[in-house]
Amino acid sequence: MKIGIVGGKGKLGSIVYTMIQSSDDKIEGIIIENNNELIDSIKNADVYIDCTTANVFMQNYDAYTKNGKPLVIATTGFSDMQLKHINQLSKVIPIIKSANFSIGAYKYLKIIQYAANVLGDEYRIGIIEKHHKYKKDRPSGTAKEMIKVITEVRPNKIIDVESIRLFDIVGEHELYFYGIGGETIELSHKIFNRESFASGAITAAKWILMKQNGLYSISDMLE
Amino acid sequence: MKIGIVGGKGKLGSIVYTMIQSSDDKIEGIIIENNNELIDSIKNADVYIDCTTANVFMQNYDAYTKNGKPLVIATTGFSDMQLKHINQLSKVIPIIKSANFSIGAYKYLKIIQYAANVLGDEYRIGIIEKHHKYKKDRPSGTAKEMIKVITEVRPNKIIDVESIRLFDIVGEHELYFYGIGGETIELSHKIFNRESFASGAITAAKWILMKQNGLYSISDMLE
Amino acid sequence: MKIGIVGGKGKLGSIVYTMIQSSDDKIEGIIIENNNELIDSIKNADVYIDCTTANVFMQNYDAYTKNGKPLVIATTGFSDMQLKHINQLSKVIPIIKSANFSIGAYKYLKIIQYAANVLGDEYRIGIIEKHHKYKKDRPSGTAKEMIKVITEVRPNKIIDVESIRLFDIVGEHELYFYGIGGETIELSHKIFNRESFASGAITAAKWILMKQNGLYSISDMLE
Amino acid sequence: MKIGIVGGKGKLGSIVYTMIQSSDDKIEGIIIENNNELIDSIKNADVYIDCTTANVFMQNYDAYTKNGKPLVIATTGFSDMQLKHINQLSKVIPIIKSANFSIGAYKYLKIIQYAANVLGDEYRIGIIEKHHKYKKDRPSGTAKEMIKVITEVRPNKIIDVESIRLFDIVGEHELYFYGIGGETIELSHKIFNRESFASGAITAAKWILMKQNGLYSISDMLE
Repeated sequence: MKIGIVGGKGKLGSIVYTMIQSSDDKIEGIIIENNNELIDSIKNADVYIDCTTANVFMQNYDAYTKNGKPLVIATTGFSDMQLKHINQLSKVIPIIKSANFSIGAYKYLKIIQYAANVLGDEYRIGIIEKHHKYKKDRPSGTAKEMIKVITEVRPNKIIDVESIRLFDIVGEHELYFYGIGGETIELSHKIFNRESFASGAITAAKWILMKQNGLYSISDMLE
Repeated sequence: MKIGIVGGKGKLGSIVYTMIQSSDDKIEGIIIENNNELIDSIKNADVYIDCTTANVFMQNYDAYTKNGKPLVIATTGFSDMQLKHINQLSKVIPIIKSANFSIGAYKYLKIIQYAANVLGDEYRIGIIEKHHKYKKDRPSGTAKEMIKVITEVRPNKIIDVESIRLFDIVGEHELYFYGIGGETIELSHKIFNRESFASGAITAAKWILMKQNGLYSISDMLE
Repeated sequence: MKIGIVGGKGKLGSIVYTMIQSSDDKIEGIIIENNNELIDSIKNADVYIDCTTANVFMQNYDAYTKNGKPLVIATTGFSDMQLKHINQLSKVIPIIKSANFSIGAYKYLKIIQYAANVLGDEYRIGIIEKHHKYKKDRPSGTAKEMIKVITEVRPNKIIDVESIRLFDIVGEHELYFYGIGGETIELSHKIFNRESFASGAITAAKWILMKQNGLYSISDMLE
Repeated sequence: MKIGIVGGKGKLGSIVYTMIQSSDDKIEGIIIENNNELIDSIKNADVYIDCTTANVFMQNYDAYTKNGKPLVIATTGFSDMQLKHINQLSKVIPIIKSANFSIGAYKYLKIIQYAANVLGDEYRIGIIEKHHKYKKDRPSGTAKEMIKVITEVRPNKIIDVESIRLFDIVGEHELYFYGIGGETIELSHKIFNRESFASGAITAAKWILMKQNGLYSISDMLE
């Protein structure tokens, strides 16, 4: 099995490549630079992982269509119009798309929802999320998703969120249930590099290879 | 509703008493010292919480039998023979018995079992438990229960456990799932005083009041 | 030795009283309620700890003057005019005054200054301070003092500060030195109740008893 | 300036090499494999960093003598006899030798000694050190040094040490001062990779270049 990594010299792409090459599985990685001419010329991968930018992705759109191979889209920042194009593309090839291929983060959300359900209303709930100094938005996207899944099972609960922007922190989310006498249940998720994203994208590549045309999400893969 | 606190001047008993007195509920606490003559003389509580020792409990055994009121046993360290007597007593009165009335700890075990199930086999699992310097046994009873509930869903998993005995730490249990690139999901439970035990014992007193004769556990109460 | 605790039924005063009563030292505490008539009538303490409010303190001003006994002022929030009065009072009696009698916090500031000096410029510096949800100001007064003592030895250093307001956190300050490869030196100070404040005020009461008239600070006592 | 990295393909050596190559300084790294014939043939480095093993070092002993260039020894595990040889060698060339070139760890020891001195006897002291599962010795060498420097200023203090061996933890040392009411001052040092060791060895290489013959330690360099 050959995986074409489009944007294979970028931040995420280069980790995907290294991880594939050092894997015990019989898979091979092919780096495809962010260039629509290059992708046109490469036909021999079985599945592609796109780790470029929304604009580069659109330049390669025709190549993906002609190529006809399954696709993992780990690229983010698409406009609504671009998302419509991706939807269109998924009628011709199988596509799995996620803003975050960390399988751990996905499962973490399931765990905190279960905990919120089990723990009942006697606990106060708070979130601390920590990222590097250059992340502008507060709170993080994942923190917002945390609030969403908790609110699904505890609709009227007040959830306080605090954000830390310090140093080079890659991503840490801490959820606290705070009870009588200070009793505390903490559920946290921490990543220290992009390897878990890369690992999830490779898992997705293996999974999408066996699928019918259509647009899939990470929850389709994991459920 | 009157709650008789047998051993009401001990560590746990005195917190139970204070918590009842400062409660908004219409409940009243009666301190009964660790003395089988005293308990004989007090007939006017609706339910009893026993926070003594195994031996004192046995001295009061006849009083509980004659008294005929529902009973919460928060005392620990019974011999097998003593446990048989308790079983016998539960044919005459309703009894709820637990080594640990922390409802939070009970729910924590449910959460970690769910997490072990969801997270699959890609994560390594480790436990750190922390208690005060004078706790002799390693690992703690709760750590052993953690291993048990995880092993129920992940039978072949190696689970490393490390113990810290330092200062006056009341009780902290940390469970780590450790994945690719150091990705870490931590689930921890920390208590800083015995209030959560006291609170659980009071909840149990209210619950056992409505029950038929029999021997109940904290899981009967919470499921 | 008798210590008069003015405001002895308040948050801090009641802890001071309990701590004195359970002390092994031959000291005795006298609760004096927040009332200037009461203080007038009590002459038999050797030293006073004032834990009231700025306004109540001023009502007792004349009593302190006539009384002529040494004084610990643990009260805060004085206006400039009131501070001038305190200065005036210190010409008649010995006074030690501090916004925070935590000796640990004072020593913590010394330790972090030493560390900032030793560690040099290769480390990035960040502070996280955590307090309960109802504390309005960000960052905390102690965080500002931390920046001040670090800046004294590292004048041009950028120090990032982040604040957490969650639950009932009494007071936590964390200082991070962040170096090559993520190497981290953390220096933190955490309190979980007001006992360290009370303990410092009692230490100050013993110390001020032996002093000449004048206005002293916690650093006079500890240097 | 050219730095010869003897053992440049090993764990530490390869990080030293990468770090030199990506440095802004005008320095160049030369990888010398663990082979005494190779080292003989390379004469053109200005200073050498030895990151091999005690035995390989001894095989290169004659080459270092003839070569006559300053030397950083980051290798450990020498026998007493081998240490005598190193001492002998230091009469011919300048040598700096340390079991641990982490400058941060060295400064951390200074900070904790200062803290132990400032904080006085009212605090209980405890250490938690954490390393990967495959580290056999408990407690770590650094934990022993921590006890040594604290004991120099607090001779009669009991210091409890607990060890955690879990996952791939590179090295974490936590020192706790535990006071009244649970007040806690924590001083910790954490590394997540060997970059701080490599960085210290390079700093040492620059420093030893300017020195007279003799055997130097990391404290000679930093004081």
